[in-house]
Amino acid sequence: MSNVSLDDKTMARQNGIVQPLLTDLYQITMAYAYWKSGKVNDVAVFDLFFRTNPFQGEFTIFAGLEECLKFLQNFHYSESDIDYLRQTLPSTIESAFFDYLKDLTCKDIILSAIEEGSVAFPRVPLLRVEGPLIIAQLLETTLLTLVNFASLMSTNAARYRMFAGKHISLLEFGLRRAQGPDGGLSASKYSYIGGFDGTSNVLAGKMFNIPVKGTHAHSFVTSFSTLDDIKCVTLQHAETQEQCNLLEKSLDWRNRLSLILDASPEEASDGELAALISYARAFPSGFLALVDTYDVKRYRFDGLHRQHMNGHSGYNSNCGTNGITPAIRSRCGYTVERTLRSGLLNFCAVALALHECGYTAVGIRIDSGDLAYLSVLARDTFKKIAETFALPWFAKLTIVASNDINEDTILSLHEQGHAIDCFGIGTHLVTCQRQPALGCVYKLVEINGQPRIKLSQDVGKVTIPGHKKAYRLFGADGHALIDLLQRSSEAAPEVGQKVLCRHPFQESKRAYVIPSKVEHLYKIYWKDGQITTAPKPLSEVRERVQASLRTLRQDIKRNLNPTPYKVAVSDDLYNFIHDLWLQNAPIGELS
Amino acid sequence: MSNVSLDDKTMARQNGIVQPLLTDLYQITMAYAYWKSGKVNDVAVFDLFFRTNPFQGEFTIFAGLEECLKFLQNFHYSESDIDYLRQTLPSTIESAFFDYLKDLTCKDIILSAIEEGSVAFPRVPLLRVEGPLIIAQLLETTLLTLVNFASLMSTNAARYRMFAGKHISLLEFGLRRAQGPDGGLSASKYSYIGGFDGTSNVLAGKMFNIPVKGTHAHSFVTSFSTLDDIKCVTLQHAETQEQCNLLEKSLDWRNRLSLILDASPEEASDGELAALISYARAFPSGFLALVDTYDVKRYRFDGLHRQHMNGHSGYNSNCGTNGITPAIRSRCGYTVERTLRSGLLNFCAVALALHECGYTAVGIRIDSGDLAYLSVLARDTFKKIAETFALPWFAKLTIVASNDINEDTILSLHEQGHAIDCFGIGTHLVTCQRQPALGCVYKLVEINGQPRIKLSQDVGKVTIPGHKKAYRLFGADGHALIDLLQRSSEAAPEVGQKVLCRHPFQESKRAYVIPSKVEHLYKIYWKDGQITTAPKPLSEVRERVQASLRTLRQDIKRNLNPTPYKVAVSDDLYNFIHDLWLQNAPIGELS
Repeated sequence: MSNVSLDDKTMARQNGIVQPLLTDLYQITMAYAYWKSGKVNDVAVFDLFFRTNPFQGEFTIFAGLEECLKFLQNFHYSESDIDYLRQTLPSTIESAFFDYLKDLTCKDIILSAIEEGSVAFPRVPLLRVEGPLIIAQLLETTLLTLVNFASLMSTNAARYRMFAGKHISLLEFGLRRAQGPDGGLSASKYSYIGGFDGTSNVLAGKMFNIPVKGTHAHSFVTSFSTLDDIKCVTLQHAETQEQCNLLEKSLDWRNRLSLILDASPEEASDGELAALISYARAFPSGFLALVDTYDVKRYRFDGLHRQHMNGHSGYNSNCGTNGITPAIRSRCGYTVERTLRSGLLNFCAVALALHECGYTAVGIRIDSGDLAYLSVLARDTFKKIAETFALPWFAKLTIVASNDINEDTILSLHEQGHAIDCFGIGTHLVTCQRQPALGCVYKLVEINGQPRIKLSQDVGKVTIPGHKKAYRLFGADGHALIDLLQRSSEAAPEVGQKVLCRHPFQESKRAYVIPSKVEHLYKIYWKDGQITTAPKPLSEVRERVQASLRTLRQDIKRNLNPTPYKVAVSDDLYNFIHDLWLQNAPIGELS
Repeated sequence: MSNVSLDDKTMARQNGIVQPLLTDLYQITMAYAYWKSGKVNDVAVFDLFFRTNPFQGEFTIFAGLEECLKFLQNFHYSESDIDYLRQTLPSTIESAFFDYLKDLTCKDIILSAIEEGSVAFPRVPLLRVEGPLIIAQLLETTLLTLVNFASLMSTNAARYRMFAGKHISLLEFGLRRAQGPDGGLSASKYSYIGGFDGTSNVLAGKMFNIPVKGTHAHSFVTSFSTLDDIKCVTLQHAETQEQCNLLEKSLDWRNRLSLILDASPEEASDGELAALISYARAFPSGFLALVDTYDVKRYRFDGLHRQHMNGHSGYNSNCGTNGITPAIRSRCGYTVERTLRSGLLNFCAVALALHECGYTAVGIRIDSGDLAYLSVLARDTFKKIAETFALPWFAKLTIVASNDINEDTILSLHEQGHAIDCFGIGTHLVTCQRQPALGCVYKLVEINGQPRIKLSQDVGKVTIPGHKKAYRLFGADGHALIDLLQRSSEAAPEVGQKVLCRHPFQESKRAYVIPSKVEHLYKIYWKDGQITTAPKPLSEVRERVQASLRTLRQDIKRNLNPTPYKVAVSDDLYNFIHDLWLQNAPIGELS
């Protein structure tokens, strides 16, 4: 059969830039209706904000700004876009509208935003878009798409970083389970911003200059069956350049270690040893090996029997995962004390052989079983070897754990005690499994200088009208106390001066705050058709996340029942909202 | 400040094609270790399969094949990729390896797959990749990324279609909440494949030729304050070409209707009327209006009061959403009987005015409140008008509902009774909120003709070794009975001939099946460097989904406790697995 061409003509990003057609059709139909209604010169203010923090937490990391700026910078409907719209919209659309679209750019838009990487809170706009109603409206969906996932992902990663503690390495391993290729790339980028140390995603490494990490998979180990599968056994000594026989040395060490580690060499898989030797030859300075491929063997009858009792499907998702308590473990019939005998023995043998060739091994990865127990077992083994052979570095080998880790697993492992140095985290991180979407909205708050309020049965959905400024007020100890929204016409709060902060909707809730520091939250990033404040490079945004989180009190950041951070309005804005409310809402009826 | 250039040099897809660097680093480190170990000519077979159906269901739709084929077709490391790898991998990597990578293509790979759009089941490989070990290994992550989300999304959409029923239109509205721009595009594409009728995503429409839909947002309505905001009130009559005054006619109809609908014109917002007239002028043949912008007004005091009692945050996620029962509604203090008075009155007035100008309105969209109640209220209103003015089409106006819909909402609405014709579904659909990742894995099952088995404590994780064929056996009533895996050397099962089907791991579970039809599940899609079976166009894959689902018995597809579909192995394959198992697993110890 002939070669079939499958090329798409377009895609979400061209040269890394999101296209203006990546939007909801109703933005374009509204644009036409505005245009047709003579509203071409109307000027609007839209706020982009969220109403609830994700993950049952009390903070959100704002991210995606750089991508929004790129989008504004490149906003332009191509000929082919216009042709598509012409075919898609009703034939009654006036042709002059398409000419209007053809020339549309973001030159008259002003975009203000919170600094990328900052902690942000419900109702405080992340972005403010001012400019011609039609173009500001046309930006809605794309800006939301760019901010929602970026912020969600950064927040998720920042939470993992917080709960893991600063001394543990965190690697993003989620590409295969991500929501599409670009979902995977965004996950890598924003995990890094949120505080991860690297990713397995090579393209993300190339695109964003993020450290990439990775060793080998179980399939690498199972592709070797016997020691005969090693085609070449020699390795040049790191210093002497002498040829060392890595196989001989490894076998020799395996025999010696079996006495010390109470494991006979017959328990260790030769295929696995072959794989580890081959891997060590390829990466003598970066030898980090997966050690759990073969140890499961010993549990076969037991495991199979128990699984039978669980019904025909054979799946029991409570068992076989990490972070499980001894109680669950025993209920599932696990005898995990036995595992890692093959892998650990083989790894240590190869690591010691490598050492004789002048190289220092890096460590192991554990991808199954009881990670708390197994990591401690491995660490104890490493310490024993370190002591026996007077090799102190051996005690400090890296232990990477990677099986289906989530926030709760990390907290549970910390509680139980473990010896893990690094977590490789996939599905839960990259899909934000606990809450896979952030609910940012984009609301009209002013048109032609007139404020707009969106009322709702649900007071949480009422928008705060008008063009506003936002300030973060800090206490004397350096912690952020409150975010304050004011009308833009008001004077900024001043250090040392008493400020009345009011709950936006509850009359009785108000407090005086005397700030020790006042941070003006918005900067203009885009004006007159160009970027006016350059967005910071990834590495600085990443630092900003940690710096910004440090300004939050611990009780706001904790996992269980965190304290909500306060967001207030000035007295002036409070009255403004409520006057407008009364003006817009007719008097209710009792029923 | 000067214009700052932010261009990325690369991206996930170039010209719509996924790049080979979109992979985990360990694939490349393994490739090097294989290369360095002289395994360049090793030949492997990998199976790509999942272990559990998503969404607590008992079926999965396989999708993503076309993208996998594109990926194979274009697999090639660019100069810049090689440069990046050279910098990223340890400096000890032999330079000849990079030359090897430079020339690597998929010409020696054979890819077999189930037909895209087919129902698929745990353990039955969706893809089989045969060829040189190194290249087959290098494909792992990218193939998983391309299949996992595509299949998850198609399955999710197919479930919505199934539970909504075939007479209801389903539109995908999720771009703003999707996991990145490409997550949004994939969601549109695979929702369509799964049975949706269209999307709001314009770029998806352009790229995949999917119907795009959309009308206007609340911000469109709130951007108009008074009737003076209508700049132009005339509309040319569809037939007579006469100029009609749409404002006058609408006001006239609003007065007449207020008597019939027991709602005074003062209750209706003039800003809303202005917006609807403007929208109708722009889209006289496509007038579908959002009608819930202003009706919440009347509940202010009540709603605010109740929210106060719920504590300071003011959020109460149980209230204000759709599909809620009357009991919950009353607990939340809702008096939803009142809503839509402004919107419905204004809509009907404009629709009748449009009718006088020769146009037929399309319908309404409801984006908040009790969708069951409000849709019935709207339908009753439409029927009353249809009858009063002898306009039968009015009774059949389309009612679109769109607020935070998920599977359960649809089932609950069906249970309560509603008058909705179309659902617009966003977040829950596009992020697959109920389960945001499918767990496909890619396992080595054969190397150089030797079978490979991956053992595990969890029998559900044991792989089925060797090169296999898969058959779907059908009963006399046309329903699929069982999927049967065989060793590739075995003869295919025959119609009318008794076949012994065995549970892969439970000795006692076996059954004879006499198939009335036998479907060979795999076709070779890629061989000798080219596509050998052209993947079907989107529209045919979409039809395949529905056809394939029809072959499943209803109890397998139901929402609550669906019956698992059976997957079996032949007697020959059963013995092969268990011999290999015994061969690979040493005898356990009692402890």
